[in-house]
Amino acid sequence: MTDSNLDLVGIGNAIVDVLSRTGDEFLSNNRIHKGTMTLIEAEQAETLYAKLGPGMEISGGSAANTVAAFANMSGKAGYIGKVANDQLGGVFRHDIKAYGVKFETPALEDGPPTARCLILITPDAQRTMCTFLGACVWIAPSDLDENMIKNAQVTYLEGYLFDRDRAKQTFRKASELARGAGKKVSLTLSDPFCVKRHRDEFLDLVTTGTDILFSNEAEIFELFQTENFNEAVLRAREACPLTIITRSANGSVIVTDKEVIEVAAEPPACIVDTTGAGDMYAAGFLYGFTRGKPLAECGRIGSIAASEVIAHIGARPQRDLKAMLQEKKAV
Amino acid sequence: MTDSNLDLVGIGNAIVDVLSRTGDEFLSNNRIHKGTMTLIEAEQAETLYAKLGPGMEISGGSAANTVAAFANMSGKAGYIGKVANDQLGGVFRHDIKAYGVKFETPALEDGPPTARCLILITPDAQRTMCTFLGACVWIAPSDLDENMIKNAQVTYLEGYLFDRDRAKQTFRKASELARGAGKKVSLTLSDPFCVKRHRDEFLDLVTTGTDILFSNEAEIFELFQTENFNEAVLRAREACPLTIITRSANGSVIVTDKEVIEVAAEPPACIVDTTGAGDMYAAGFLYGFTRGKPLAECGRIGSIAASEVIAHIGARPQRDLKAMLQEKKAV
Repeated sequence: MTDSNLDLVGIGNAIVDVLSRTGDEFLSNNRIHKGTMTLIEAEQAETLYAKLGPGMEISGGSAANTVAAFANMSGKAGYIGKVANDQLGGVFRHDIKAYGVKFETPALEDGPPTARCLILITPDAQRTMCTFLGACVWIAPSDLDENMIKNAQVTYLEGYLFDRDRAKQTFRKASELARGAGKKVSLTLSDPFCVKRHRDEFLDLVTTGTDILFSNEAEIFELFQTENFNEAVLRAREACPLTIITRSANGSVIVTDKEVIEVAAEPPACIVDTTGAGDMYAAGFLYGFTRGKPLAECGRIGSIAASEVIAHIGARPQRDLKAMLQEKKAV
Repeated sequence: MTDSNLDLVGIGNAIVDVLSRTGDEFLSNNRIHKGTMTLIEAEQAETLYAKLGPGMEISGGSAANTVAAFANMSGKAGYIGKVANDQLGGVFRHDIKAYGVKFETPALEDGPPTARCLILITPDAQRTMCTFLGACVWIAPSDLDENMIKNAQVTYLEGYLFDRDRAKQTFRKASELARGAGKKVSLTLSDPFCVKRHRDEFLDLVTTGTDILFSNEAEIFELFQTENFNEAVLRAREACPLTIITRSANGSVIVTDKEVIEVAAEPPACIVDTTGAGDMYAAGFLYGFTRGKPLAECGRIGSIAASEVIAHIGARPQRDLKAMLQEKKAV
């Protein structure tokens, strides 16, 4: 594979997930807000992990999940993110490459360990995340593979990168590189609390440097400071050429300056763990988009990909998504 | 918890499983015999891992799975096994303790890394294992907590330990400690190739030092050099006071000097991954046994526990087995 033919490059926090089933009382006892992502430091991560039930380690990271699924559908994808030179870093690197994603960012030496996200899965299949960023934080503008970005159709950035200054600089540089080369920049808002922490900067980026925005309702409400869905749609239309708002079981809404398209959710075989649903939706949507499909079809592919991942534990596909899309005549 | 009231102590190879779905051709291309366990060295482990699809890391190890499930049913269990002082060692330690198992064997310093078992799950839900023993091999008689063993009702040993001399010595010493204190020794034969490698020693141990023997058909056929089930039963009856032969979907057979009891398999919700089925059966059987249940009921508890683990990826229970046993009125 040469860089020149990549469809999608994802840039994000390179994380190994530790998934564990818990009861709701575990969240309340530890004052964790259900459904969100909380940043924790090394010491908190250890304390919380010690209290946690048995886990399973599965590679994660929002943008990494998206490119893994994108490659699984047969798209050509690359990834840029920082792991440490440790066992979990090796796991992350193995897994993303095993999906067929180009990943060459050098590992961090002599720094904190590979990032971990403790994901608490409650009986309602909702996931609540506590992230220790570790080596992630050390991603720097110099880690960007400029050719990879300039030659990719879409550069996909996760909002979580905004939580640390060095990562934010990397984010901005990637965005400039992509747009400078006439390519598209896609952003996912990631988490309502993350949006709250960096609202003005996100607004600026969405308005001036984003071609395709992914968001769920809570995130877009937080960004535009509204709780009215129609108002959020109007604001999105003014801010960005293409916005997709995901609404869990209620499907998704695609907003352009000309139209508002409603897409139904794809009913999953069962609902086990919603980790990665948004990441999969973005993967499917962008897969359709980079193939020039009509927007409604892009949304349907996103919905099908999301339905696969919520039917099992873990944020990356376990089935052959390409075959699944063919079965459903979506590609 | 004090040592004096442990029901079960497991001694085995402390391993983190790397589970990955593969096609049958992956096995044939790499000359791996389906359904068995092959020992591999560090270099082979790396080569094979590099070829493998995306994985998930879940704590494993045969006897470790058994004590984890035993504790999950509310039994009091301890474990002795050797991990390294690395990230996967930390994962193993966290998980087994999270099930409520007493585990205090010190980690190996300055040696090979924590053991890994690459588990290839084929579309028929069969599991095929390639194990890099790493730090496991360094378990030594001095790692045995003598009081823990002397005070436990049953000491449970996995046949896999026979594959390395130091581990074999540890195995023998544990067996002597348990029997010397008037307690029971239980052995699982683990794998037909392992039995083949050490048949004479296994025969000696089964005949002179085992109270409760677990085996599947392939293993007992290999041990007694027969392919006739009835002959295997007769030989088992002569060799050991209590033998349990598991037969996958055909249930299990419990053999004593007085009777042969057939136990039906418990139909699983679905069959996803058979990794750990034998380990779970042993956990359930021993749970009933240490509570003085009739042998047929012990077998039924074993079958129920096995049915839980084959319905998902990974060798340890993900549901509350105690509650599951109560629902099915098995305890």
